[in-house]
Amino acid sequence: MSNIITLTTDYGTRDSFVASMKGVILKTHPQVQMIDITHEIAPQDIWEAAFTLKSVYSQFPKGTVHLAVVDPGVGSGRRPLIVVTEGYYFVGPDNGLFSLIYGDAERLRVHHITAGHYFIANPGPTFHGRDIFAPVAASLTKGVPSGNFGDEITDFVKLNVPVPKRAENNIDGHVVHADRFGNAITNITYKDLQSLIPEGGKMGPVSVTIMGKEIKGMKKFYAEAAPGELGAIINSSGQLEIFLFRQNARTALAVKRGEAVRLTVNPAA
Amino acid sequence: MSNIITLTTDYGTRDSFVASMKGVILKTHPQVQMIDITHEIAPQDIWEAAFTLKSVYSQFPKGTVHLAVVDPGVGSGRRPLIVVTEGYYFVGPDNGLFSLIYGDAERLRVHHITAGHYFIANPGPTFHGRDIFAPVAASLTKGVPSGNFGDEITDFVKLNVPVPKRAENNIDGHVVHADRFGNAITNITYKDLQSLIPEGGKMGPVSVTIMGKEIKGMKKFYAEAAPGELGAIINSSGQLEIFLFRQNARTALAVKRGEAVRLTVNPAA
Amino acid sequence: MSNIITLTTDYGTRDSFVASMKGVILKTHPQVQMIDITHEIAPQDIWEAAFTLKSVYSQFPKGTVHLAVVDPGVGSGRRPLIVVTEGYYFVGPDNGLFSLIYGDAERLRVHHITAGHYFIANPGPTFHGRDIFAPVAASLTKGVPSGNFGDEITDFVKLNVPVPKRAENNIDGHVVHADRFGNAITNITYKDLQSLIPEGGKMGPVSVTIMGKEIKGMKKFYAEAAPGELGAIINSSGQLEIFLFRQNARTALAVKRGEAVRLTVNPAA
Repeated sequence: MSNIITLTTDYGTRDSFVASMKGVILKTHPQVQMIDITHEIAPQDIWEAAFTLKSVYSQFPKGTVHLAVVDPGVGSGRRPLIVVTEGYYFVGPDNGLFSLIYGDAERLRVHHITAGHYFIANPGPTFHGRDIFAPVAASLTKGVPSGNFGDEITDFVKLNVPVPKRAENNIDGHVVHADRFGNAITNITYKDLQSLIPEGGKMGPVSVTIMGKEIKGMKKFYAEAAPGELGAIINSSGQLEIFLFRQNARTALAVKRGEAVRLTVNPAA
Repeated sequence: MSNIITLTTDYGTRDSFVASMKGVILKTHPQVQMIDITHEIAPQDIWEAAFTLKSVYSQFPKGTVHLAVVDPGVGSGRRPLIVVTEGYYFVGPDNGLFSLIYGDAERLRVHHITAGHYFIANPGPTFHGRDIFAPVAASLTKGVPSGNFGDEITDFVKLNVPVPKRAENNIDGHVVHADRFGNAITNITYKDLQSLIPEGGKMGPVSVTIMGKEIKGMKKFYAEAAPGELGAIINSSGQLEIFLFRQNARTALAVKRGEAVRLTVNPAA
Repeated sequence: MSNIITLTTDYGTRDSFVASMKGVILKTHPQVQMIDITHEIAPQDIWEAAFTLKSVYSQFPKGTVHLAVVDPGVGSGRRPLIVVTEGYYFVGPDNGLFSLIYGDAERLRVHHITAGHYFIANPGPTFHGRDIFAPVAASLTKGVPSGNFGDEITDFVKLNVPVPKRAENNIDGHVVHADRFGNAITNITYKDLQSLIPEGGKMGPVSVTIMGKEIKGMKKFYAEAAPGELGAIINSSGQLEIFLFRQNARTALAVKRGEAVRLTVNPAA
């Protein structure tokens, strides 16, 4: 158990929502260390939060509690959850936010939080981030066993995560995120690329197509491309990414989440 | 006394102003824990800062020092203050920033900071956030008594806070803030709503009017409304709030701070 | 040696890049204290990062490690560096990011980081902020001597920093930054101003010209100017700054980085 809590929300940084959560956490456990992942998830965009969590959670020390609140259903019947994997804890609403964690975990337990004595006094129906999730996360870092918060469940909500479609010498995926630099990140991975190479064989010429443009070959690092050249790369999370060196591929190409991307590995000569 | 300092400013997060304050705080007290409330108060908007502080200060452990700097008058005659209530300390300029705290406090002492040996060496006239307020806040968390910083005063500046106007079965208030989700928060409170219910009587049909639109009934939580439906709710701070479920009421209605809102409680049938 | 690491990047706060770095830092040194300078450096704007670091680094306790990553050349031949001055450590790429530090330092050592056992396992070619710079900065705060990370070098990259041009009774500089309030900060300093005053003599009337506008006299603090009046001031970093009281000089004048500014000190009457 570490004493680290990370925070991922769509609350923004202009209002006092995030600080309210942190105040409540400090009231419960003053020695905690809090790290913001981001609070700029687009309002109510559960999918963006799921992608963000997946890209960063394993960089933290084992035992870290990842608190995530994107919660349009707050106050309704949707359940509050603690997710326990072999290395980490996740706390947040049962709306699919942890869908990409479930797939990663080797050991998985999911608890429906019901033990109200861990909540703040008089929790309301509109701000469970502050009233329920924050004090529960803080109690976890104090060593309260996850089983104390409620029973295990198995019917938790999973988003339908689209999987890239494999053909003989290509694979069809799509853009899942555009980052601050305008780089378009896809759901095609380094493993997908390797699977296209014949066993014991050599990798032939690679190409990536997006929005009618063909990118020949892959770069190892961004500066291998000329300024303004469209490039393809396996990024630091092992995902295929389209970039425009020193420019913004997202705005230049008007690429959106969901845009189709094909990776082709031609036979070696 | 806690070792927590919160920070609320209009300095933004792109420049190094906030980090300069934090550096000075750490020089004075290395074991302090600093929590950002927000640095995105609109430039020089004292009222927005006052509202933000009021919404969050009591979520923190007793003894927390709330440092707030929105300070168009820096370097002029306006006084630097320490405000002491039964639970918290506030440090910042005497320009009305703490107006909503004064009304909340049961016990209140306000000190005019004059003890220059708590400032940084050679404080300048343009950045008291770094030169005066940061080191004073840090010294408070080290246990220096508030009286050591200067004499008590009683003529501190209070903003004129408009109070909702009560009629027989309605109350007239206005929008005080629009949050990240576009929810329009009013100065009408849950207590105001209760005051409209006849003693020992039943609550009749409730309606809220804003910008020519009438909202019938109140929701308990956001997801009770249909997507795109205009709703009214008592929010997590006990204030009447107008929202558009999964959309942005502020942009959809073009609602601005100051917009009139009427809450009506009709007689029970 | 302090246990403080500051972070300055162009990674933004919407993606998980910064949190990935912080996770890696905490894995290496759980007791570290991390302070964000800013993550809103314009993408790949090395000059803006250099200016920001210069304006804030010395506000921190001696021994602080300043980690800065604006790194368009990541993965290419550009070297990773540790810069050691009499008071501080700096960690980042060798692309000129520390140019304004080199000029400030009385004692200066620059190490080319090569000791791969301080990196994360399997560092990639696209995210040295996470894979190399974060764990190296964390190891420094644990007391690893800077010499352990690699040999000293002297041919590190220095940006060509334009110096204001002195004439008999004036000095020509330019705008280096516009801050959140729209104040235009120049590379003309308080020392430059003093150098224009004849030795043993009196300072005559001062004027500042920018974009065809003449500002007569200097203010001591912002509120000395009338709302909307263009003023000139020596700011909290000792630099000449042009401001529009309670308004935004950058947008009102359309002033850009590089805009010429002349400071004139006329002979005393």
